[in-house]
Amino acid sequence: MSQGPDRTADDDVRIARTRRDVGLAALKVLTEEGGDPLTHARVASEAGYSRTTLYKHWPARVDLVTLALESVGRMPHGRRTGDARADLVAELRSFRRAIVDARLDQILMALAQWATIDEVAAIRDSIVEDGEGVARAILADFASGDELEAAVAMLSGVVVCPALMYGTVPSDVVIDHAVTIVLKAFGVIPVGQAST
Amino acid sequence: MSQGPDRTADDDVRIARTRRDVGLAALKVLTEEGGDPLTHARVASEAGYSRTTLYKHWPARVDLVTLALESVGRMPHGRRTGDARADLVAELRSFRRAIVDARLDQILMALAQWATIDEVAAIRDSIVEDGEGVARAILADFASGDELEAAVAMLSGVVVCPALMYGTVPSDVVIDHAVTIVLKAFGVIPVGQAST
Repeated sequence: MSQGPDRTADDDVRIARTRRDVGLAALKVLTEEGGDPLTHARVASEAGYSRTTLYKHWPARVDLVTLALESVGRMPHGRRTGDARADLVAELRSFRRAIVDARLDQILMALAQWATIDEVAAIRDSIVEDGEGVARAILADFASGDELEAAVAMLSGVVVCPALMYGTVPSDVVIDHAVTIVLKAFGVIPVGQAST
Repeated sequence: MSQGPDRTADDDVRIARTRRDVGLAALKVLTEEGGDPLTHARVASEAGYSRTTLYKHWPARVDLVTLALESVGRMPHGRRTGDARADLVAELRSFRRAIVDARLDQILMALAQWATIDEVAAIRDSIVEDGEGVARAILADFASGDELEAAVAMLSGVVVCPALMYGTVPSDVVIDHAVTIVLKAFGVIPVGQAST
């Protein structure tokens, strides 16, 4: 076979396409069926490629996990209005939507289970940084250091914990209360004021 | 073989022992190695029973998951002193200890992944109720309804989210801040006061 520059460009395009197809198929299996069925056989069938192709490029199961996680899109963030309460509520609703629509909870659980592997841990850090970055930036106007860490984890928690612990997501009212609790503690909203 | 009452009592003892042994072995595999290796072969080898015995009593993988989860002990709770701040801090530290020592995070993730099955969902509800019951009771002195739900999820979140999102657990100082944030919002601690 020719090894000329045209051939190489074709190869590159084909490999990139295979990678994208298999990555999206792996992510689909992971989010719709869980981490358990994320096998070469299942992903090959979902992607419409042979198992041989998958084993050649991604020999271990962790390679499939990594590929799936690399295919996770960025979480959509709203434009900040400068109203901390409204902006935090909008962020938590986006996070809730990502759990319902993109099964971000399944993705986070797969990340946690495989994060002993450095490559997966790096992807997790990037997804988490993207996910909570806007909320962190808003809260940084009112708190810093360990107090900021606590507030960020608490607001992530109001969305993640119901998903993990009750198999549900919080209502608008629960999200409003969570944001109000943090902003009351930081002196942004007077404590006497009703929460919602 | 005799089917008399003595024989039956022996059988009962043996079945109960097998159930306990296999349950603890399944829980050990789940918490030390994750949900993925929780297979009949792996649990049989860990428990020192034959695969045939396991398949006979617990034919499906979900049966092994259920058995493992039934073997989860109750989370230790401290005695309430009446000081909401101290009692909540003690609860969150117990929760943190359960994540480090008993890998409660792995257990929660397995519960979440299998909770579409009613039997697993029932076990999850019982573990979660036990886990957050004391914190909920303390907070119920200051809040109710959706505001109480938000506060409970936020305090669980300050422990669960770092485990899930950064592969770590919160420091004492972060836990103190989280409790202070909630109690400030509820008017128990003055907002002007330093957090820790």
